[in-house]
Amino acid sequence: MYAEIITIGDEILIGQIVDTNSAFIAKELTKIGVSVYQITSVQDDREHILQALEDAKKRVSVVIVTGGLGPTKDDITKHVFCEFFDDTLVEDPDVLAHVEHLFKKYITSTPISDINRKQAMVPSKATVLKNEYGTAPGMWMLSGETAFVSLPGVPFEMKNLITNAVIPKITEQFKRPFILHRTLVTYGLGESAIADKIEDWENGLPSYVKLAYLPSLGRVRLRLTAKGADRKVLEDTIESEFEKLNPLIGDIIYGIEDEETLEEVVAKLLTKRKMTLATAESCTGGRIAQQLTALSGASAYFKGSVVSYATETKVDVLQVSGAMIEKHSVVSAEVAKAMAENVKKLLKTDFAIATTGNAGPTKGDSDAEIGTVYIAIASPKGLFAEKFNMGNHRERIIQKTVNKALEMLQKEVELV
Amino acid sequence: MYAEIITIGDEILIGQIVDTNSAFIAKELTKIGVSVYQITSVQDDREHILQALEDAKKRVSVVIVTGGLGPTKDDITKHVFCEFFDDTLVEDPDVLAHVEHLFKKYITSTPISDINRKQAMVPSKATVLKNEYGTAPGMWMLSGETAFVSLPGVPFEMKNLITNAVIPKITEQFKRPFILHRTLVTYGLGESAIADKIEDWENGLPSYVKLAYLPSLGRVRLRLTAKGADRKVLEDTIESEFEKLNPLIGDIIYGIEDEETLEEVVAKLLTKRKMTLATAESCTGGRIAQQLTALSGASAYFKGSVVSYATETKVDVLQVSGAMIEKHSVVSAEVAKAMAENVKKLLKTDFAIATTGNAGPTKGDSDAEIGTVYIAIASPKGLFAEKFNMGNHRERIIQKTVNKALEMLQKEVELV
Repeated sequence: MYAEIITIGDEILIGQIVDTNSAFIAKELTKIGVSVYQITSVQDDREHILQALEDAKKRVSVVIVTGGLGPTKDDITKHVFCEFFDDTLVEDPDVLAHVEHLFKKYITSTPISDINRKQAMVPSKATVLKNEYGTAPGMWMLSGETAFVSLPGVPFEMKNLITNAVIPKITEQFKRPFILHRTLVTYGLGESAIADKIEDWENGLPSYVKLAYLPSLGRVRLRLTAKGADRKVLEDTIESEFEKLNPLIGDIIYGIEDEETLEEVVAKLLTKRKMTLATAESCTGGRIAQQLTALSGASAYFKGSVVSYATETKVDVLQVSGAMIEKHSVVSAEVAKAMAENVKKLLKTDFAIATTGNAGPTKGDSDAEIGTVYIAIASPKGLFAEKFNMGNHRERIIQKTVNKALEMLQKEVELV
Repeated sequence: MYAEIITIGDEILIGQIVDTNSAFIAKELTKIGVSVYQITSVQDDREHILQALEDAKKRVSVVIVTGGLGPTKDDITKHVFCEFFDDTLVEDPDVLAHVEHLFKKYITSTPISDINRKQAMVPSKATVLKNEYGTAPGMWMLSGETAFVSLPGVPFEMKNLITNAVIPKITEQFKRPFILHRTLVTYGLGESAIADKIEDWENGLPSYVKLAYLPSLGRVRLRLTAKGADRKVLEDTIESEFEKLNPLIGDIIYGIEDEETLEEVVAKLLTKRKMTLATAESCTGGRIAQQLTALSGASAYFKGSVVSYATETKVDVLQVSGAMIEKHSVVSAEVAKAMAENVKKLLKTDFAIATTGNAGPTKGDSDAEIGTVYIAIASPKGLFAEKFNMGNHRERIIQKTVNKALEMLQKEVELV
C-alpha cells in the first residue's frame, strides 16, 4: 500500500522554512506498513495543486496534504479541494463552536472575526478531523479508491491530527503489509570498504529485503528493510541476516540502533538508577545540556551545566587551576578531567561530562589543531579523558562531540 | 526562470532523515532570481527517478538532483543519468586523482578499494563539478534546453558545490529576473485580525507583488515577494507598500526582518561594542548558549553560561538565596533577576540573560502554571525582568523563550 505527501506553501519553495512535516508523517505511515512513494512540495497556486492531486491519485491509495489552511487569502487549499472534488463549502457547527471556544480561552489578544469564523466552512463531502490545537480543521475526502487528507501545516497541530485521527483511520480502512526497518551501527570503516567485505552476503539477501548504507558523522549505519504479510517472518529474517554479518565485520559492529536517541537512552538509565548528571561544556557550548533538557522529565537527573566558553570561566567558575592551563593548554586531557571532576563536585552529582576542544574555523585560546577535542567523564568509579579528531567542519565537530560524549557516558552509567 | 529540486533516497521517504538540502538549495536559487517550481523526493528506484527527471524536464530550465551518488549498490543516480541521457560511464582522471588524494590525506582508517575508484566513472557527456570534500563528483548535463545537475546528498559536500560551482554556472548561463523577498514582523495580533485591517491594501497590491502571512511563535510575519526585471523598481515598490501599512497596523509592527537570525544580530552588536555576555538558564536548559556558540567567533563576546536546571544549582553555583526562592518561588521575577545579576558578576561580563519558568509537561520545582516564564536582563545600565505566558507546548515554550530573551537583549545592547 502506497501513500504520497504533498506539502503546500511558497515558504518551502523559497527556502524560508525546512519542511519537517514530511519526515514526521512518513515515519508514522511507515510504522503502520504504508510506504511513502513520493513527497512533493508545491506552491500556493491553484493549478499546481490540482495537478499534484491528479498525479498522486494515479499512483497511491492515500494522499496527505499539509498547509494552505490558514484564514488569509494566500491560503487556498480548501478552495482547490472543492474544485477537485466538485464540491462546495458548508458551515460545520462543531468546528464553529470549537473556533469560538479557542478564541474565548486562548487567543484573548485578538477578537474573533468573520475571517476566523470562515474556518468552519468545509467541503460538504468532507469528513472533518478535529484540530484540538488550532482553528483549521483536518479533512478526509474520497476520490475513487484514493483517500485525500488535508491538514494544517503548523507542525504541532498537524502532528496531533496525524497521531490521533489520520493513522487510526488508515489502520481501520486499509489492509497493509508489515514494513520493518532495522539499522545496524558500525564504526571504523568506510562504506565502500564495508561493501567490499559483505558483497556476497548482500547479493544473497532475499528479494523482500533491501539494504541501504547510511554514512554519517564517523559511523556507517546499515539499514535492512523487509516488507511482507507476516511480521514474525520479517523479524526472523532480519535477525538471521544480521547474524551472518558477525563473521564478516563483527569487529566494527557497534549494535542494533535503537529507535531511541542517545539522550533518551541516557535519560532512561539515569532516571532508573536515580543518579544525577552535570556537564561542563567548552567547545560544545551548552549543546549537551540543551539536548538533554529538550526531553521532558530531565529535572529527574540533570542538575545543570557550566558552559565555560572563555578560559577565565574555567578558572573563575570551575576552579580549574591557571597553572594547569598554562602547562597543558586549555585543550588538553588534564583540563577536561579537571572540568569534569570540578563540575561534579560543584553541582553534587554522580556523573559529569566535560568537553574542551577547538571547533574552528580559527584557532581560539589554544594552539590545538581544529577538530581536536577532549572529552572527560567523571563517575562514581573514577575519572578519565579521551582525545579525538573530529574533522574540520565546525557544526559537525560540535555534533560529533555531543554524540561521542553521550556514548561514553552511556557506557559508564551501564557499568555502575 | 524556473528550477526544480529532486532529492533521492529511501531514508527521506521512510522519515529517517529530514530533507534539509532542499531548503538550502531553494534559498540560494531564489537569491539569484530563479524560482523553485517544485521539490520532489523520490525513492532509490530506477523507474521512479527516470519519471521524475522526465516530468521536471517539461516544466523547468534547471533540475537539481541530490543523493544516490555513494559508492555502494543502493546508490543508482549515476546509472539512471546514463540511461536518461543515453550515455555511458568513462573514467575521469582528475576525479580519480582527487579520490586517491582524499584517501591518502583524510580517510586513513580505510584502504582505498576498487569501489572507491569507481567514483571516478562519470557519464561521458557530463561536465564534472569538483567535490572538494568528498569522493562523489557533481555533474552538469544538458537535455534540450534543460540543465540537469547531480550532487551528492551529504549536506556539507552539497552546500560547497552549490555555492562554488552550481550557482556561478547558472548565473553565467541563464538570464534571470530579480526576485525580492522582504518580511515585516508584527506582534500582538492574530493573522486573521491583521488580514481584516489590511484587506484594502492587500487588494491594491500590484500584480507582480505577492503577500504571504507567516504566523509562528507569537508573531505574524508578512512577506512580500516581488519579481521583475528591474531590481530598483522592486525595492521601491516593496518599501512604499510597507510604508502604507503604518497607518493601518503601525502599533503592532516590530520591523523589517533581517536576513540575519536574532543571534547573529546580537553577536554582531556585542562584537562591535567589544562587550561580553553570560547566560543563566533554567527552563531553556542551555539553548541560548548553544545557539550563540553555534556561530563561529562566539568566543569574542560569549564567556559562558550556568545552566541551573536544579534549584540547588541556582543556590550552589549562582548564589541565589534559598530564602528568596522560598519566599517568591523559583519561577519568579526576583529569582530571574538574581540569576542574571549573579551570573554577570561570576563571569565578569557586561550583559547577562537569565531564564526561569515551567516548560511542562508537568509542574517542576514550582507551582507556576505551565508556560509561565520570567526573563531577566542585566546590563551596564541596570537589571529588570519580564513575565510571559508561552503557551502549553514544551518545545515551543523553550524556543519562544530563547527568541524573546535574545530580542530583549538586543534592545538593551542597542541602548548602550
